[in-house]
This record gives sequence, C-alpha cells and structure tokens, in this order.
Amino acid sequence: MKVGIIGVTGYGGIELLRWLKNHPYIEVAYLGSHSQAGLDIADVYPHLQGQLEYVSDTQLQEINADVIAEKVELVFLSLPSGISSSLVPNLLEKDLKVIDLAGDFRIRDASIHEQWYKKQAPDRRSQSQGVYGLTEFNRADVAKASFVSNPGCYPTSVALGLAPLLLHDLIEAKGIIIDAKSGTSGAGRGAAVGTLFSEVQESIHAYKIGAHQHTPEIEQFLADVTGKDVLTTFTPHLVPMTRGILSTMYGQLTDKAREMNLTSDSLQEFYQGFYEKEKFVRIHKSGDFPKTKFVYGTNFCNIGVYVEERTERVIVVSAIDNMVKGAAGQAIQNMNVMYGWDEATGIDNIPLIP
Amino acid sequence: MKVGIIGVTGYGGIELLRWLKNHPYIEVAYLGSHSQAGLDIADVYPHLQGQLEYVSDTQLQEINADVIAEKVELVFLSLPSGISSSLVPNLLEKDLKVIDLAGDFRIRDASIHEQWYKKQAPDRRSQSQGVYGLTEFNRADVAKASFVSNPGCYPTSVALGLAPLLLHDLIEAKGIIIDAKSGTSGAGRGAAVGTLFSEVQESIHAYKIGAHQHTPEIEQFLADVTGKDVLTTFTPHLVPMTRGILSTMYGQLTDKAREMNLTSDSLQEFYQGFYEKEKFVRIHKSGDFPKTKFVYGTNFCNIGVYVEERTERVIVVSAIDNMVKGAAGQAIQNMNVMYGWDEATGIDNIPLIP
Amino acid sequence: MKVGIIGVTGYGGIELLRWLKNHPYIEVAYLGSHSQAGLDIADVYPHLQGQLEYVSDTQLQEINADVIAEKVELVFLSLPSGISSSLVPNLLEKDLKVIDLAGDFRIRDASIHEQWYKKQAPDRRSQSQGVYGLTEFNRADVAKASFVSNPGCYPTSVALGLAPLLLHDLIEAKGIIIDAKSGTSGAGRGAAVGTLFSEVQESIHAYKIGAHQHTPEIEQFLADVTGKDVLTTFTPHLVPMTRGILSTMYGQLTDKAREMNLTSDSLQEFYQGFYEKEKFVRIHKSGDFPKTKFVYGTNFCNIGVYVEERTERVIVVSAIDNMVKGAAGQAIQNMNVMYGWDEATGIDNIPLIP
Amino acid sequence: MKVGIIGVTGYGGIELLRWLKNHPYIEVAYLGSHSQAGLDIADVYPHLQGQLEYVSDTQLQEINADVIAEKVELVFLSLPSGISSSLVPNLLEKDLKVIDLAGDFRIRDASIHEQWYKKQAPDRRSQSQGVYGLTEFNRADVAKASFVSNPGCYPTSVALGLAPLLLHDLIEAKGIIIDAKSGTSGAGRGAAVGTLFSEVQESIHAYKIGAHQHTPEIEQFLADVTGKDVLTTFTPHLVPMTRGILSTMYGQLTDKAREMNLTSDSLQEFYQGFYEKEKFVRIHKSGDFPKTKFVYGTNFCNIGVYVEERTERVIVVSAIDNMVKGAAGQAIQNMNVMYGWDEATGIDNIPLIP
Repeated sequence: MKVGIIGVTGYGGIELLRWLKNHPYIEVAYLGSHSQAGLDIADVYPHLQGQLEYVSDTQLQEINADVIAEKVELVFLSLPSGISSSLVPNLLEKDLKVIDLAGDFRIRDASIHEQWYKKQAPDRRSQSQGVYGLTEFNRADVAKASFVSNPGCYPTSVALGLAPLLLHDLIEAKGIIIDAKSGTSGAGRGAAVGTLFSEVQESIHAYKIGAHQHTPEIEQFLADVTGKDVLTTFTPHLVPMTRGILSTMYGQLTDKAREMNLTSDSLQEFYQGFYEKEKFVRIHKSGDFPKTKFVYGTNFCNIGVYVEERTERVIVVSAIDNMVKGAAGQAIQNMNVMYGWDEATGIDNIPLIP
Repeated sequence: MKVGIIGVTGYGGIELLRWLKNHPYIEVAYLGSHSQAGLDIADVYPHLQGQLEYVSDTQLQEINADVIAEKVELVFLSLPSGISSSLVPNLLEKDLKVIDLAGDFRIRDASIHEQWYKKQAPDRRSQSQGVYGLTEFNRADVAKASFVSNPGCYPTSVALGLAPLLLHDLIEAKGIIIDAKSGTSGAGRGAAVGTLFSEVQESIHAYKIGAHQHTPEIEQFLADVTGKDVLTTFTPHLVPMTRGILSTMYGQLTDKAREMNLTSDSLQEFYQGFYEKEKFVRIHKSGDFPKTKFVYGTNFCNIGVYVEERTERVIVVSAIDNMVKGAAGQAIQNMNVMYGWDEATGIDNIPLIP
Repeated sequence: MKVGIIGVTGYGGIELLRWLKNHPYIEVAYLGSHSQAGLDIADVYPHLQGQLEYVSDTQLQEINADVIAEKVELVFLSLPSGISSSLVPNLLEKDLKVIDLAGDFRIRDASIHEQWYKKQAPDRRSQSQGVYGLTEFNRADVAKASFVSNPGCYPTSVALGLAPLLLHDLIEAKGIIIDAKSGTSGAGRGAAVGTLFSEVQESIHAYKIGAHQHTPEIEQFLADVTGKDVLTTFTPHLVPMTRGILSTMYGQLTDKAREMNLTSDSLQEFYQGFYEKEKFVRIHKSGDFPKTKFVYGTNFCNIGVYVEERTERVIVVSAIDNMVKGAAGQAIQNMNVMYGWDEATGIDNIPLIP
Repeated sequence: MKVGIIGVTGYGGIELLRWLKNHPYIEVAYLGSHSQAGLDIADVYPHLQGQLEYVSDTQLQEINADVIAEKVELVFLSLPSGISSSLVPNLLEKDLKVIDLAGDFRIRDASIHEQWYKKQAPDRRSQSQGVYGLTEFNRADVAKASFVSNPGCYPTSVALGLAPLLLHDLIEAKGIIIDAKSGTSGAGRGAAVGTLFSEVQESIHAYKIGAHQHTPEIEQFLADVTGKDVLTTFTPHLVPMTRGILSTMYGQLTDKAREMNLTSDSLQEFYQGFYEKEKFVRIHKSGDFPKTKFVYGTNFCNIGVYVEERTERVIVVSAIDNMVKGAAGQAIQNMNVMYGWDEATGIDNIPLIP
C-alpha cells in the first residue's frame, strides 16, 4: 500500500520513515516538507543513504492535498501542534486515510483545547470523524476509522498504566498523581537554547507544572474509560537522555481494593491478566520495575506495579520509547489495525541494549 | 584546626577533601582508608596532584581511634552504612568531635532502623549524644554538639522543601508523595553492573520502591518538626547524570490553606519569608522552578512552589547537589556552626554552569 | 538453520541474540553461559520478554561441545579473549561451524600474539583452519570456511578506512596514525570502577597507548592486503557514549598520489568506486564526514575522506557501531556469506536517529 | 580593582563572572550585554541569585567605551569572533586595560587571518599593542601589556603539550598531527540544531577538517617558540560532554632525540623538569595519561607523554577545561600577571570529581 508522511524531516517523521522500512506491505510514495521541499531526503539525512528502496520518491514535496491524494492512500501527519488542524479536513475530503500524530484533534471539548493549548480549537467536523488511537483500548473503532488521532507520548504511558486500576475501581478517580520523565527527543528538532546539550547534560528539571497540554488528554481518556470524572496532577520532567518516558503514577486504594486486601503480588497478577493478549504491553514480575532502556527503540510499554500497604496507595511505573509507542510505532500499530494486518507487522523487535 | 576524614577514598570522602581546600581555618591532618592504607592520596587520585598544601599528611592511614585522637580535633566519617556505628563510640570516648555522613545514627527508633536498613541498629548511647544535622532547622543543637549525624541526601532535599508547609499546617501530614530523582554519584564508587555507564546512559528507572531507607529518616524529621505523625510515599529514581537530586513533592491543601486562598504567588512569598535569613536556601520566583544544574557543585538548595487550584494540591520542587548540600557541604556547614564560624565559610561559591 | 551462542549474557552475546530475531532462516537452539547456566535468558534480561519465539530453548546451558553439536549446526562464540582458544578445537572436531568474536585466533604469529595479548597463543592447528572475517575483503574465503575469526571492533573501522589507500599505493605504508574513539560497550558488562557512569560521564581519555592488542591485528591485515610491512601508531580513547567507534586516520601521500594531484574530490570518487558494490560501506560526499550516530544500531561503516594539500596528507574518518559491524552484525554478515544467503539478510536496517 | 565583562551572558562571560567571585582583589563594576541590556544578570541566570556581593552593578549595560572607562580599569571581552575587533581600539584609547577572549587579534598576518576566519582582519594598530597571553610562555610580556589577546581553547591545550618538544628539537617541526576532542560548551550558547542534546548525545564526529581557524594560531605560536616553520594537521572533534578538551598529539622523533635514546621515562622527566615551576601544568607519571575529568572546573593543563619506539614517534596527550584554562581561567591568570599578583589568585582549586 502506498503511504505518505507529512512533516518527514522532524524527529517524528524521520522515525516513521525508519520504521516503515521494516513493513512488508508499505511503499512510501510521498514525503512532504514545507521548509525543505525540493531536496532529497537522503541529502537532509545522510544516514538514510542506500536504505530507501521502499521509498518510491525520495524528493521532499510541497504539502498539497490534491497531489497527496494522487500518490497515496494513507497519510501520516507529523507536524507541530496547530498546523495539522488546517490540513486534515482537506485530506479527508480527498478520501485519504489520515493518522495525525499532533495534538490538534485529541481533545473533544473546544474550550478545554483552547485553555490548555492556548490556540484555537480545530474544525469540529473533522474531529467528529476521528478516533483516539490508543490501540489497546480503541482497537475496534480504529479498525473502522479513516481518521485516527494518535495519542500523545505522555498520555500513552499514563493511560496504559492507569486504565486497568480505574476500570476496575481499584483506585480513586480523584487524587491521582503522575510524575513523568522524558528524554529530549520529545522537544523536537527545532533549534532552542533550552535543549542544547550544554544546558541539558548533568541536569533534570520539571516543566509546565500544572499546565502541560497532555493533562486534559489524560483526563479525557481516563474519564471515557471509567465513566467518572478523573482529576490528575501531571508533572513532566526533562531528563538528560534522548529517548524514553518513565511515568511514575500514584493512586489511593478504593474501599473495594482494601476489602480485597490488594497486595503487590495480587495486583501484578491482575495486570498480567488484564494485558494477557496485548503484544505490546509487558508486565514486570512482582518486585521488578521497568527502566526506559528496556523498551528502547521498540513499541513496548513495560509496566511494574506496587501496593504500599503503609499508605494504602498504589504505585504504577510505566516505560515507553516516546518516539515509538509514544508516536511513530503506535501510528503504525493503528495503521495495521485499520488494514486488518497483524498488529505487530513491521514493529516487532527487541530493545537496543546496551 | 586539624581535622581528619575517615573513608576519604570514596566519593563522599574525596568531596570533603576537595571542599576543605577552600576553608581558611582547616588543616587536614589525617586521611583514613581501610582498603588503601599506606598509599598516598595523590597516587590514588592523580587529579589532586599539587593541590594538597592544606593536607599535612597525605598518606592514607589505618583507622585507629587512638591515632586519630592524637592527630586531629574533629573527624568526618564517610563510610558505607553499617560501619560507622562501630567506630563512633570509640571516637567519642577519645573526646573527638565527630560528623558522620552515614545513615547509622539517624534513626532514633532501633526497630525502625532495623526494618529499613536490614541491619542491626547501632549502640544507643552514642546515638543519644548525636544531633541530626539539618543545619537550617537544628542550628542551635548543632552548635553545642560533639557528634553530628549528617542528613541523607534525599532527606535534605525533602525536608527543606516540605518543612515550611507542615510547620504552618498548609498541607496534610498524611498523603504526601515524594518523587525523587538522583544522579549516580549517590551510589558510590563501588564496581557494580547496575551503575556502569552502558547500563545507566539513555535510561531512567525507579528503585527501592516503598523500601528506601531514607523514608523513615524523612518521616522522623517531619514528625519532629510538626509534632504529628507524617506518612509519605517516597520513590527514588536513578537519572543518567552524576550529580544532583531533584525532589518533586505533592501535598494536599489543609482546610486552613484553602481558607487562606493559598495561591502559587502567596505560597512563593511565604517560602521567601520563611527562608529569608538562610544563605543556602534559595526560593525561585513564582512560576519558576529549579534545575539541578542551578546548584551544581554548590551547597544550595533551590526551591520552587506551585498551588494547583484544580486539585487543591501543592507541588514543591527542590534541587540540591547530592555530594554537597546532600553530603560534604552540609557536613562543613555543620562544622562551621559547631565552631562558631560564619556558616558559609569555605562553601560559598557559584554553581558550575555550563 | 539452528545456531547457538556461547557467552550470550555478555554485551556481544545479547546483541547477537537481538539481531537473530530479524533473520528469516535462523532458529536459536542453544544459549551457553558458564556463569548463569540453569537460568532463563528472559529472567536475566527482562527486556527480552515475549520476544523469543525464534529461540527454541531459552534456558542457559553449560558449555559442552557434545551437547552443542547435537543441538546446532553453527555456533557463535562471544567470550572474553583467552577463553575461546580452549573451546574452538573441540567445537571444530564435532564438525560444528564456528564464528569466534574474540581475539584469540586473529593473530597468526604466536610470538606477536603473546607480546600484545600477554597470554599464551592458542593452538596453531585450529587457527590454520580459520579465516579472518573482514567480509568486504575476505568474502571468498569466508564462503568456504568452517571457522571464521571475526575482526575486532577497532580493526574493522580502520581496515575499511585504510585498505583502499594502501592497496592503491596512495599513502605510505609507514607513518600511519590512527586516533580512535570508542563508546563504553566495548569494555563489556563486567563490573569495574573505570567504566562506572560517574567515572566516564563528562570525560574523555586515551588508554593503552602504544599497547592495544588491536594494533598487530590492524598491521597484519593491512600487510596482507598490500604485501608490504605496515607500521601504525594506534591510540584508542574512551568516549562518554555507549555505542560507536570513530577512527580518524592520517597517512602521508605517496609520490604516486602527488603525481596524480589527488584532491579531496578525486579521493572521494575513488572511494565511492572502490566500495561501489558494498552494501555496508557508505562513502560521504566530498566535504562531509560521518558521525557515529549515522551508523547507530546498524552494520554500516560510514567513511569520509580529505586531502590536506598543505601537509600532503590524507585524512580518513570512519564510523561504525562497535556492537554491530564491529561485532555481532559482521558475524551474521559472515554467516550469511558462509551459507550463500544475501549478505544483508537480517541486518539491513536504518540507524536509530535521534 | 574594578573590572568589567563585555558579553557576560555567553558561556565565556558567565564563567569569567563565576571565577571572579573567588578573587580577593576584584570588584566587578560593569556587565555589558548588547542583546539583553537593561535586565539584571540574576534574572537572566537564576543560579547567580544571592551570590553577587562582589558585583557592584548587576544590571546589564549597553556597550559604550566612555561609560566603561568611567566605571572600570580593566575589561574582559567575551564576544564571538569578529566583534571585538571593532571595540578594542576604542577601549584602548580610553586607557583601559583589555583582555580579549575572542580570536580577532591572535593572528598577526592579516592574509592568514582572512584565509582561516573568512572575515576581514582587524585594525593592525591595536594588534601591534597586543600580547598573546599563553601565560606560561609569554609571562614577561603579559606583565607589561595593556592589551592581552587570550589564546584559543584548542591552541592552549596544544601549545602547552608541544612547545617543550619543539623548543628542544625533539620532534620534527613538520609532520605534526593533532587530534583534538572538545565538549559542547566551546560552541557557545547560541540555539543551533547541531548542538541540540538529541543530536550530540551518543555520538562523536570530526568537524572543520583541514579548516579550523585555530590551526594558524597553533602554527604561529609554535613557530614563534622555535624559530622554524611549523606545519600541523589539526582535527577537532565534538564529544558528548559539556566541558573539556583532550588533545592527542603525534610527532616524529628528530635525529637528536633518537641519538639521546629518548624513552617514555626520560621524556616524562624532561617534561617534569620543563614545567617544574608551573603551577597550572601537571605532568603525569610515566605510563599515566590524563582524563579531561582530572582538570574539570580548574585552570590546570594535565599532560602525559609516550615514546613509541616501534614507530620512532612521540605521543603527547593534554587535557584542559576549555572554559577555564582554555578561556576564563587563563584570562584571570593573565590579569594576575599584569597586576603582579600571585598567578593563582582566585583560580586555585581542585577538580570537580566525580
């Protein structure tokens, strides 16, 4: 099948392109780049040299819906937030299938979108056609979708970690704390003082405290899953590493959980059962917890759980590669679902260790 | 004044030695090392070459209380937990002043010590003479002490961050969550697979979840300060950097705080006032938060605060250099207090940036 | 085909195992580990969980030639230098095919081996059957071999960079300088103070100056290629990164090269032509040079060349991933050649960027 | 004494400011910044908060020679190359003493300057008053100077390493190879894709091969020292670390050296003697070589030497902190010399390890 990538020169786009080489059914027939149209992708990224036999046109193209529709059947959008919203309606009109990696269409409530993104919410009509592509939970809808809004990196790591607890009423819907740590690739490839090596190395800090735009995405998803209002405190941190998100999540046991005498062991078994059929969610043994390195360069989400009896609290730690399960990998997982292919097609590999 | 360092070849010991060069009143007259006695410290650590004019004997010595008492007036112990407990009584008997950087004497309750350290608690008699050396809070006692138990690195970052809130009843004493992130130097210089560069680089993980021995130290100190039982969830993480601890702390507003309509701005002013006279605690402007780099190579604790009105929660972020305010720097700060010197003597410098 | 890996728990072994998942013709039927026999590999390395459908026995086994011969047709040895020499003769006697990643059998001259390795040279008989597996140069011999001695990481990066110049008499055979820089994974997974994160981070240093055991391997190969004595100065450095070797090589132009008026452009064209048919050697455009990141996680060797007219000198910069082209990847490349499969089978991917 | 810093918000400027806190005779009375005039330096750099008692005016000022001359006696210039050349003549006219950290006035020959810097050479008149401030070699001239051109970071590491050999005719003046490795702080604080954390981490590469503007500076200094033409190949590399330069230098033994039967041991002794009186140059024992970590945050240059008898070649490895001995530290060292103060005043400390 022929696909295109809009915004291929960013980190998300180049990661999509990298993964699609492994996909047996895909020909990449369109590479869109607003800023570098006309250049060959292998000149922009010399590490691609000699490896693009699956890319039928390696020249970067202007972004034009008519042209794209002639060349491909499905298009991935990997653009900064605020741009895809103006493109998606045109692309859908041309009967293209669209998987959007930006945040533009994830929040259903326009006022909430505007409050957190500080930008006008996109066209409601396109959004109403879109499916939130957290594959493990929305597989059936994704399968029928022509427009998938791919989840954010942080929300993916959080949703997979917390949904089982909330679905089964084991932690309170209010009072959840999410302390998340990300590598620098999430900040993209734009030149900025704050992500210079000399600034990031040998340092860690929290940012956008109380104000990160992934907060309402997390709350919306968890509310959808549980039917309850969910209120979270979400604090992202920047860590001196390139790839990976570790989310450490804290919830208060419900009466139900206390009555069950939930322990670390029984909770681990519950998670194991919950995700038994999920290829890409791996539960650690009781007492073991993930490192982001355990998922480096893969589509896995690794999860470890703990019940702190002293404080009647659950601690869940999840690890993903923000570029893969948090972006390009999950996008391909969604494409696989949309086309009825094995979900792991082209994204089934072992983490890069060491 | 003549001082000695026991365990000088570890990271804590070598950091003490480094700082003492800047101290105008100190001669280092004894360097103790069990494993490398007989060698010259500058052969073990070639970076010290030519810089030890303040060290009157650079040869590493066996650890013997009689010998030490002949040579120095005060001795720093920088040894792994479980060893100083057998040395301290002997040293105190010889009328030496002692500042112990290990955890052996920090926990007053022997059963709690044994539960968390998984080791026998030390001799109660020595401990009863000891003062917990969180300088900003125990200054008067430190001034009179002959034996100071220097706080742990994590507890220092947490205590300075949370004590103002608990002292003034602004957050609930139960339900506190501490998500802490440390560099690798805290793990010491012992050869171990888990702290190899190839294992730590490009990864972050939580460790000792629900079981870190600094948990009861934190709770004991905060209970002392507030007169209430304090229950915390403490989760340490290992970050791919050498120095620095960032603690992100979460507490629930009390009724009192809600009635005051506590905001980020008013809370920032409160912290500013609370620590006004403290040289080594720096409060960030409202909306600003610390990076560990802002305290790199210094004795500072930088703190930023936030009130999340949506969730009625306070978030406090504190940053220290674990080797300095979390170990050697605070030990010297305590020595300065014990001798009536200006508290910043020898430890007043600007962070190493970049 | 069934293969085994001896020493699978080291970094080289685990990397071999990782790559073999991608190989369409391979079943891994034996995993040997002296120190951890009896354990399941997925317990030792939790990141492998759920990914080992191509491994028919995931339990680590004692190293026994009879047992191995029953289970597999070919065996990879990934052991510290000095151990494989005692195993290889037994394995070959059982008619196993062997690819040895250690240095034991690379040096033909026993006295040179002993001089540089400071260990007794191995059994000459086994060695005489072995082929030095620098695939691009010894393809025909590898194809017929039952025993391949896989090149060292540094020698691979150097040989591919310098051989074209020496073969065509463009630089003097004497007076070559090789300044090489490696990540820490080359030092293996053994616990050691020198490769702790706290020691390696924010530092670079040279090691084994004038004494690295890869020096005679480099000289032997280049002498074989040219028929001349080759004398090199080889200085390896340890860089604060996990993967990658960058070799910067300096040679003096010959009279022939000067008469040709060799320039950077013409030299680049010469390299381009020389390696035209080589999948895994990529020549940068004139004026461009490799980063190790350009080959991260791949079997490529990227090369950039420069003629410094002022000094009549050639500079060649080559980059490999020491774990792949410098170890596991080239071993699989050699296996592919031995079995007549496409040389890139299972090792044809795009570098992990960012 | 009152001094000023022009360009204080760059990495070089902020480092100067940091060091001057330790200097007993200095008041900083002027901070110049073209781009951020009007702001307070502690707002731009919050890590300085509370530490600027030695800075009498912390507000950033426009750059105006009249104003500066009223406020201070000596001014440091820490500006990108190409800017100081237009300021220095004005500053000197006002009878200010000037120490310039940029490269504008280092090269005497205007055509060579223009060839390598690709910019017009500065006013010859100012330059003729300037002294090249490699303190260890030009101390007498610096003492009398009112204008010092502070050496580049690479040239400092190279000159200290090679000058003893060339002065004593132990290596050939032609055929020298310098393979240098630098951290990212040398690239400054400008936002740029190439120095983003995600681009630099886990990678090393050479840059400006055959074309780095420090090449003629190195050659000019070594020619001055020896009275001979010196021709070098200089290859800088970017290493994933913030601070530090390691230069690995290769020279061919002269007939004289060969007749002396120069060995690693005798060469080490020679260096030891050569630099015996130099506080800031430290020679490693024979067989030992520097890590950049050994000089981290200090004004030291550590040097290790080796004679490779097989190839009749000398290898010299030198390590500096590019921000200190390669910039701010040496500038202060020069100021100390200019004012007849002890040369180590304010810059005498122990490396930050770990």
